[in-house]
Amino acid sequence: MSGPSLLVPGGIATPRGFRAAGVSAGIKANGHPDLMLLVADAPAHAAAVFTTNKVIAAAVSVSKEHLQRSGGVVRAIVVNSGCANSCTGDQGVADAREMTATTANLVGCPSEQVLVASTGVIGVNLPMDRVRAGLPAAFEALGADQGAAAARAIMTTDLAPKESAARIAIGGGPVTIGGMAKGAGMIEPNMATMLGFVTTDASVPKPLLDRALRDAVDRSFNAITVDGDSSTNDCVMLLASGASGVTIDDAGYGPFVEALTTVCRELALAIVRGGEGATKLVTVNVTGAATGAEARRAAKVIANSLLVKTALHGGDPNWGRLICAAGRASVAFDASRAEVTIGPLVLFKNGQPHDELAPAAADYLKAKELTIGVDLGSGSASSTVWTCDLSAEYVRINADYRT
Amino acid sequence: MSGPSLLVPGGIATPRGFRAAGVSAGIKANGHPDLMLLVADAPAHAAAVFTTNKVIAAAVSVSKEHLQRSGGVVRAIVVNSGCANSCTGDQGVADAREMTATTANLVGCPSEQVLVASTGVIGVNLPMDRVRAGLPAAFEALGADQGAAAARAIMTTDLAPKESAARIAIGGGPVTIGGMAKGAGMIEPNMATMLGFVTTDASVPKPLLDRALRDAVDRSFNAITVDGDSSTNDCVMLLASGASGVTIDDAGYGPFVEALTTVCRELALAIVRGGEGATKLVTVNVTGAATGAEARRAAKVIANSLLVKTALHGGDPNWGRLICAAGRASVAFDASRAEVTIGPLVLFKNGQPHDELAPAAADYLKAKELTIGVDLGSGSASSTVWTCDLSAEYVRINADYRT
Repeated sequence: MSGPSLLVPGGIATPRGFRAAGVSAGIKANGHPDLMLLVADAPAHAAAVFTTNKVIAAAVSVSKEHLQRSGGVVRAIVVNSGCANSCTGDQGVADAREMTATTANLVGCPSEQVLVASTGVIGVNLPMDRVRAGLPAAFEALGADQGAAAARAIMTTDLAPKESAARIAIGGGPVTIGGMAKGAGMIEPNMATMLGFVTTDASVPKPLLDRALRDAVDRSFNAITVDGDSSTNDCVMLLASGASGVTIDDAGYGPFVEALTTVCRELALAIVRGGEGATKLVTVNVTGAATGAEARRAAKVIANSLLVKTALHGGDPNWGRLICAAGRASVAFDASRAEVTIGPLVLFKNGQPHDELAPAAADYLKAKELTIGVDLGSGSASSTVWTCDLSAEYVRINADYRT
Repeated sequence: MSGPSLLVPGGIATPRGFRAAGVSAGIKANGHPDLMLLVADAPAHAAAVFTTNKVIAAAVSVSKEHLQRSGGVVRAIVVNSGCANSCTGDQGVADAREMTATTANLVGCPSEQVLVASTGVIGVNLPMDRVRAGLPAAFEALGADQGAAAARAIMTTDLAPKESAARIAIGGGPVTIGGMAKGAGMIEPNMATMLGFVTTDASVPKPLLDRALRDAVDRSFNAITVDGDSSTNDCVMLLASGASGVTIDDAGYGPFVEALTTVCRELALAIVRGGEGATKLVTVNVTGAATGAEARRAAKVIANSLLVKTALHGGDPNWGRLICAAGRASVAFDASRAEVTIGPLVLFKNGQPHDELAPAAADYLKAKELTIGVDLGSGSASSTVWTCDLSAEYVRINADYRT
């Protein structure tokens, strides 16, 4: 993958045509930044993907409705951290609507051109007096140099802000893509919702933009797992300003989506690296699957297996746990043709263990970034998923959360 | 449930017509008992359920074949612990066959009337010299009073042997059901395979026996989870000797399956109580589901959620994690009509949290045996699943397993 070479410093406000801000509105008791505003200088094309959880937060339902009503044309995104505004009933929806209406007044656009996201504790209503006071302050603070402040304002239990940007030459000139994300579990429902925001100064027709976001998210945010949970608030939003003067057509789609995927993957891997209690980033490659969907399913089952994750934490080259997880994934799997690799080492092949390689594999597993592989021996499809190890620290973080 | 009142002391050899033995053959390096023999005085009807993992151990494939070839008529079951004989290729299958053939010679029956099971480390071949020497010793040790020794010989990382028996009056007289099980994770592929063995002195026609075992297992062994994994060796086997002189017909089926379920559930709950690192036994009740299958699926997702299990460990009445897990279970779920209960306390109802009850719920969660409930607000089907909490000790056990 040549992706990383495209990377440039920057984030959400690096592409031309965007300004961002992050301020402390007092939604978080500790005074940390908790209100983010992203504004496009002119109406931008927008695409978004949302949580598949049946329980959806107020912001998710309002943003979905606004995308529909605006025909995918968006001027601003407003995000608060410190309160998920989820399971908060009609008041929650009214509050989310008010956030978009107030932002729209400041920006000077219809409120359906504003998207909204929230992350934090669920079952608690937003302190709207603080949101009302914070929004004009955030509007005042907007700047093309405020991407880093914006990235800090969407954090909850994240150990560090997560930003990424890439620049490529397409058609007439350089196109920039920038993004930021937050999330520390995939996805802890109270404080670690996964949110991703990406901008580009390319002009991208709405159908291509939708397709590009789905493609990129499938190989980035949807290919990671920390603990197998998914929250009521998850979303990834993409805005295209067109300020670069470059229009993405079918010919430019390939390079564009590769750059977009690179940015999204950097952000997604940053979430896994910073996963709750995580000490290792693990790439899980499943090959030899009958279909792509089966490859992905097997990779997710392996990546979420507690026994695999604890073995990786302990540096135990326990290939039996890998083959066992693949075996229960409800996918075509031929044990006699299957193969299990830990780094470059083949621990199981042709139905036979190679435990003589276990000491070398244990050495390999001491690294902080690992690759493990299972070939299902049943076809030619493959999938890659990223996960982290499971540590006692994860249990401590989540058992002691509110106590 | 009136089940527990049926319980009597005893185990696998308590029903008439069976003898059992457990001996140390030297398969385990520490000299603990590792070879079990169960013999019916006369050919018994047999039913069995096996792991759904695509990777199956040699013993599972041989037992499946023998059940087929014998028409479900069985004289003996031979089990070793300390070696799973899984992922061991053709030699593994030959070794499992030899175990049944040697047992058949001792008992005096065709080898297809012998079933076999193994549990222990995978990817290692059986030390057949020790098995060959151990089998005659086990045969010599057979006795109707050796059920407890048999239960010890199938243990691996289990903290205690697991036995249960029940007696009921059906038709002409008393019918006894006895069983034993092992398993410490659900199911750790190297050392904690789940095995269950149940006997009865009722005479049960093969079709009823198959149906009774499926019904009982569905509400016991298949309704528990420790860590969501399932091994290559799992099986539950049921033998009916008919020595009580009582034949189970359609009229007797109800009481019989209730007693069988009671025995299986006692054994299954013992597995959860003794789960790796477990400190609490948790009953998860899902109600208001559109279908029974959806109720079971939602209950399993809740019971396997790391965030739910860590919250239970920490005594945190985090209803948001319960509703979030139910929301991602891909089942019909109406958040506005859903209800979340912790013990007798309703923490979420009609779309509104009742966090004023959180302190009382935290008090309730200090107990060792807990009940939590989620009503999906979408129908009238329900399901009960049992799980345990997730502790840092679980991580330690599984991260340090082979190192």
